[in-house]
Amino acid sequence: MTDRTQFLLERRTIREYSPEPVSEELLRSLAEKACRASTTGNMQLYSIVVTRNPARKAELAPLHFNQRMVTAAPVVLTFCADFNRFNTWCRQRNAKPGYDNFLSFFTAAIDALLVAQTFCIAAEGEGFGICYLGTVTYNAGGIIKLLSLPRGVVPVASVTLGWPSATPAATDRLPLDAIMHDEEYKDYSASDIDYYYSAKENLPDSIKFVAENSKETLAQVFTDVRYKRNDNVNFSKSLLQVLEEQGYMNQ
Amino acid sequence: MTDRTQFLLERRTIREYSPEPVSEELLRSLAEKACRASTTGNMQLYSIVVTRNPARKAELAPLHFNQRMVTAAPVVLTFCADFNRFNTWCRQRNAKPGYDNFLSFFTAAIDALLVAQTFCIAAEGEGFGICYLGTVTYNAGGIIKLLSLPRGVVPVASVTLGWPSATPAATDRLPLDAIMHDEEYKDYSASDIDYYYSAKENLPDSIKFVAENSKETLAQVFTDVRYKRNDNVNFSKSLLQVLEEQGYMNQ
Repeated sequence: MTDRTQFLLERRTIREYSPEPVSEELLRSLAEKACRASTTGNMQLYSIVVTRNPARKAELAPLHFNQRMVTAAPVVLTFCADFNRFNTWCRQRNAKPGYDNFLSFFTAAIDALLVAQTFCIAAEGEGFGICYLGTVTYNAGGIIKLLSLPRGVVPVASVTLGWPSATPAATDRLPLDAIMHDEEYKDYSASDIDYYYSAKENLPDSIKFVAENSKETLAQVFTDVRYKRNDNVNFSKSLLQVLEEQGYMNQ
Repeated sequence: MTDRTQFLLERRTIREYSPEPVSEELLRSLAEKACRASTTGNMQLYSIVVTRNPARKAELAPLHFNQRMVTAAPVVLTFCADFNRFNTWCRQRNAKPGYDNFLSFFTAAIDALLVAQTFCIAAEGEGFGICYLGTVTYNAGGIIKLLSLPRGVVPVASVTLGWPSATPAATDRLPLDAIMHDEEYKDYSASDIDYYYSAKENLPDSIKFVAENSKETLAQVFTDVRYKRNDNVNFSKSLLQVLEEQGYMNQ
């Protein structure tokens, strides 16, 4: 059998796009594939908001800290955990939905993320490039306002999509043995950590980041520059607040 | 171009497996592909625990409410949100990790879910069948104990994997227009809901479920039988407790 999914090994995140638009027809054919993904109880607890209008992309950009992909890509997709549609159906059918709690949010988030990743893989199979924007959870409240997301709807993945205009080098990954555990979790010894992280630490880019930021170690670049405690704490508070406002914390 | 991802349209969840084992080599080649998935800041905040030992599958089964796939499938995969490995690295490199908060849990959960779905798609591309077990979040605490998951590690997706021994009919999906929103979320009118849910409501199986459970509507089968408020509230409490115990609620 030919290896249909060989392209998964060769993929790269794409941040530079050609200006060529993406047709409605192609977008729908990708969404058709995405919606075949597994979903809890076949409830399909997700929605996809498609942003193509340049004016709206310009409004979305600051909510993603002005990452250039938002305005450069022809399409931005916002995948949302969505119990609103299901709850509306329940109420219209004389049924009382009990989905205003954290478990239900997380169930819908799983549904939405499996659809998002299936969409991305279908897109990459067609030669598109994609980029996930981690900023979606940092500014979920602002995105909710801009996209008019009602109670019960929370954005959990934002993806930029388009035809690649450049192919960057593949980024590094930890050795597979660092990720996989046989039968039970094997916690990491000091020498395991040294071994698994040494290739990453010795990349020219890693050495450059450490020097540029005047740090002692690559880990400090993460903790002190890229993903800082104070930011995480503030984004945690605002994300939990969003879950409250969107009606998912009533346990 | 041939459509490499046509199989995404034709996939079905597989709950019946041939007893044929899955080789270590194949499992690793799927994991190699899975680990190319997008990950926040290339931190790879996930681990995969592989269960093949029949005795351990028997222990795992009750934690998944004895769904038959757990013992019938040759492999059960537990995909975990994992900041433990990254935090251990940080501490060993004189860096202070600030990832003991809800935002960090959700970031790691996204990473783990994108890897899980990429693994599943790679597997389906090879002819394997998979089934997600939604029960993973219901009994996360028990799974943590059984798989010896340390602080910082939370299971977010369980998947059974094997060669299909039967191919069920494809399940229904809502029309694409029910899922996709152009530029902003268009909330659902009563007639939208009637229209989007009518095919599902009129399936022979749906009519049978309503009759068997002596309900008035299919929605009541969900709210009163399958996904009940009390269960959701209890599972919410235990999942939030797990996040607390695994060190993710210190904001």
